[in-house]
Amino acid sequence: MDSPTTSDAKDAQTRIRTRLEEWTAAIRAKDIDGIMACMTPGVLNFDCHSALQFKGADAYRAFLEACFPHMQGAVTCDMHELSITAGNDVGFCHYIVRVIAQGSDGTEHASWLRATAGLRKIDGEWLVAHAHLSAPFDPMTEKVMLDLAP
Amino acid sequence: MDSPTTSDAKDAQTRIRTRLEEWTAAIRAKDIDGIMACMTPGVLNFDCHSALQFKGADAYRAFLEACFPHMQGAVTCDMHELSITAGNDVGFCHYIVRVIAQGSDGTEHASWLRATAGLRKIDGEWLVAHAHLSAPFDPMTEKVMLDLAP
Repeated sequence: MDSPTTSDAKDAQTRIRTRLEEWTAAIRAKDIDGIMACMTPGVLNFDCHSALQFKGADAYRAFLEACFPHMQGAVTCDMHELSITAGNDVGFCHYIVRVIAQGSDGTEHASWLRATAGLRKIDGEWLVAHAHLSAPFDPMTEKVMLDLAP
Repeated sequence: MDSPTTSDAKDAQTRIRTRLEEWTAAIRAKDIDGIMACMTPGVLNFDCHSALQFKGADAYRAFLEACFPHMQGAVTCDMHELSITAGNDVGFCHYIVRVIAQGSDGTEHASWLRATAGLRKIDGEWLVAHAHLSAPFDPMTEKVMLDLAP
């Protein structure tokens, strides 16, 4: 097989970036349908808290439905240091994400997280087939480190 | 562009699986050269503890050189629920990893972690260009959750 041409690869990068921006906008708006529209039905999610993994879109939707009522108003969600690697129909990307959310008691929770996504091009559309969001922990205290700025 | 043929995709899956097994075997043996041989020079690592990210092979090598002296003997490192998605020259995979290491004081540290890797085929060889290893945290206590079995 040939490698993708430069123009094909550029096109894939642009389309994947657009998908990530749609996903991020949906997170900001706590728009669960918008988030799930960016993902395949079989998406496997490793999220940053509470569970080891979420298998499939329904499991992840239920997690979001449980989480979002604990957040007041819109969520800050900004991508930094985005890198996209795309082939013909498979791609992956990684970035650092700044998240600021207000809890239901008004307390602000700010964090720097690491994000990775694996994408597939299905019927011409790039969709997230796997996502991994996390924060590192301190091995001495076993506490999560949410304030490590890039 | 055409999609990869089934036999090409199978070949990529087999080669990526072999690379992951080499990587895992090198981790068990705390063989830093063996680990780095599985990665591109520009590899971007999100590891599970101590730092937000490691940019490039030298930064990650220094991290391993700092970590491994704190572990006695060989390390248990077993992949579970491995899923590989591969295109012509870009792929990604995810799995759950069981890690058991003995600290320098003899204490056993056992954990279930989540792993993602982004791979590129360069000069015919599949190499890890990005790796993400993590554990989720408990949002109530902000403690890492290392004992969530799959």
